Amino acid sequence: MKKHNFYAGPAILPESVKKAASEAAYDYKGTGLSLMEVSHRGDDFVEILDNTEKYVRKLLKVSDDYAVLFLTGGASSQFYMTAFNLYNPDDKVGYVDTGTWSTKAIKEASAFADIETLASSKDKNFSYIPRGYKIPKDLKYLHLTSNNTIYGTQTKEWAKTSAPIICDMSSDIFSRELPLKKFGLIYAGAQKNVGLAGVTLVIVKKELLGKTEWHIPTMLDYRTHIAKNSSFNTPPVFSIYVTMLNLEWVLEQGGVKAMEKRNTAKAKLLYDEIDNNPLFVGTVAKEDRSPMNVTFLLKDNTKDAAFIKKCTEAGIVGIKGHRSVGGFRASMYNAMDISSTQVLVDVMKAFK
Amino acid sequence: MKKHNFYAGPAILPESVKKAASEAAYDYKGTGLSLMEVSHRGDDFVEILDNTEKYVRKLLKVSDDYAVLFLTGGASSQFYMTAFNLYNPDDKVGYVDTGTWSTKAIKEASAFADIETLASSKDKNFSYIPRGYKIPKDLKYLHLTSNNTIYGTQTKEWAKTSAPIICDMSSDIFSRELPLKKFGLIYAGAQKNVGLAGVTLVIVKKELLGKTEWHIPTMLDYRTHIAKNSSFNTPPVFSIYVTMLNLEWVLEQGGVKAMEKRNTAKAKLLYDEIDNNPLFVGTVAKEDRSPMNVTFLLKDNTKDAAFIKKCTEAGIVGIKGHRSVGGFRASMYNAMDISSTQVLVDVMKAFK
Repeated sequence: MKKHNFYAGPAILPESVKKAASEAAYDYKGTGLSLMEVSHRGDDFVEILDNTEKYVRKLLKVSDDYAVLFLTGGASSQFYMTAFNLYNPDDKVGYVDTGTWSTKAIKEASAFADIETLASSKDKNFSYIPRGYKIPKDLKYLHLTSNNTIYGTQTKEWAKTSAPIICDMSSDIFSRELPLKKFGLIYAGAQKNVGLAGVTLVIVKKELLGKTEWHIPTMLDYRTHIAKNSSFNTPPVFSIYVTMLNLEWVLEQGGVKAMEKRNTAKAKLLYDEIDNNPLFVGTVAKEDRSPMNVTFLLKDNTKDAAFIKKCTEAGIVGIKGHRSVGGFRASMYNAMDISSTQVLVDVMKAFK
Repeated sequence: MKKHNFYAGPAILPESVKKAASEAAYDYKGTGLSLMEVSHRGDDFVEILDNTEKYVRKLLKVSDDYAVLFLTGGASSQFYMTAFNLYNPDDKVGYVDTGTWSTKAIKEASAFADIETLASSKDKNFSYIPRGYKIPKDLKYLHLTSNNTIYGTQTKEWAKTSAPIICDMSSDIFSRELPLKKFGLIYAGAQKNVGLAGVTLVIVKKELLGKTEWHIPTMLDYRTHIAKNSSFNTPPVFSIYVTMLNLEWVLEQGGVKAMEKRNTAKAKLLYDEIDNNPLFVGTVAKEDRSPMNVTFLLKDNTKDAAFIKKCTEAGIVGIKGHRSVGGFRASMYNAMDISSTQVLVDVMKAFK
């Protein structure tokens, strides 16, 4: 039976990506060697790394004043690395708290930086994106989380500020067009919409770096990885290869503009069902709903297990909601076809 | 033509590991989903993680007073993380400099710790392992590199000290039996003898932790990863799976004792040829020769390209020496069969 993969991350990959990755794991392009067992300094991997960077630049229109890096440690490492590389004592930096990941970013930065939390949606269990908060004029940077995987919200209008935005885009990068020039640094764990767990994409405006007063360990300093083209030490070769394959697939589909259209159609289909089906209710302010992670509840939660059972019978996996919200979460990243969303909607319609 | 993979890292994997990894990349055990696209909190991956830890403990006889962790960032991140987690001002800590990686460990620790370099073999281009150096009695720890991938040396007798040894074993862990109790912390990037690039194995004696005076960012604190069983954030799932497969293979072959026998036989075969063939010369003191990375030169280096050509014709890859030593380097990790060593020896014999 075909599986419909709604996992929040690690998450669905296109069929063609899985096929090519599977082949490369055994024999990379007829070389007689697995891609997992060849030097990261060899021509094959250097070409993969170059292509991956090229695709990132092409998809998001990244100009040369930004570096594109493939690091490790996940977005969780970026929570302190961003502040550690960009902040100096006496700088004014602002954070917006839109859920678990923002909260962690604030915690890690606060340990050594005097930061200001400009707004928070904690008062309503992070079910909306704060608006209209005051942004100080002399901010060094503004830190945002574009899409909140756990709570199902997405920032749709970017803050009006001349300060560079530092943004965790782990769960919606490559899902829509971006005004890239507004951002000083974008980071994203790969395991949702980028590629394979184990690599973290960082896009950073180079002129922001090198201005801290403290010592930064070599591996935590973005400049190390810029100077060595993400190969200061052995990079996560296979995770980068899957990233390359996945971004190639996005390009073939028409790029982020096509993804945005595709994701909007899936989101409309599912949110319409949530709004029209009397058994279900969404958990998020309508204007802030994420097309990536759709969170919803059964009004009668004693039926949760029965609904999960019907989903499982239809081949749906990964639909259980995060414990912070409860109910259900349907993650519908780029690789998901609308036919899988339709299967879920059909189960919801049939559910009594 | 069969390839004989002498790469220094990422390096050779057993045939069965490549096959199983290739299958899992497309469809994990008939689930209809790739292992790359399922939750790291799901039963399948949790079992993989548990097994990987179990195999590490079994192979190296690791008792419960040690934690076994699967981190990211490579050994290069451990250079500062070890000192950052274990050192306090006024502690006396000792380092031995046996080549590039030791030198980097010393550099990263020196940035915030007052360390002592007890011995170095830099005077002879790191072609031997220092012996007979004085070890202070009140050392907090002694940092060593067990095997020097670039220079082809291996520490065969462990320093006589009651201080816990902190050891970078990136290129020879699981290749031989270890007196585990002598070590306070062992770390190893996976891409040589452990599994797939992207995961870093750390084995740490728990009682050594939690004694620093400074703030440690959450992701850099070993205690975070101990408390969350290496799943504080999304771990590098596929790299861990390949590690599990590879360690399973080592167990099936008879464990590290059998590996030691196998590696000794390969090393004898190749070093004997280097010593007996008048065209070649080894670069390392005989008593410190590594069975993992065999470094040697043609006495007439104008013939280097011709020798590489002969190797290539025989299916040998990855034999070119590191620029720090020149000549040739044959890396012969666990997964290499002696028949591949024989192919290299045959090319050396035939070379005029």
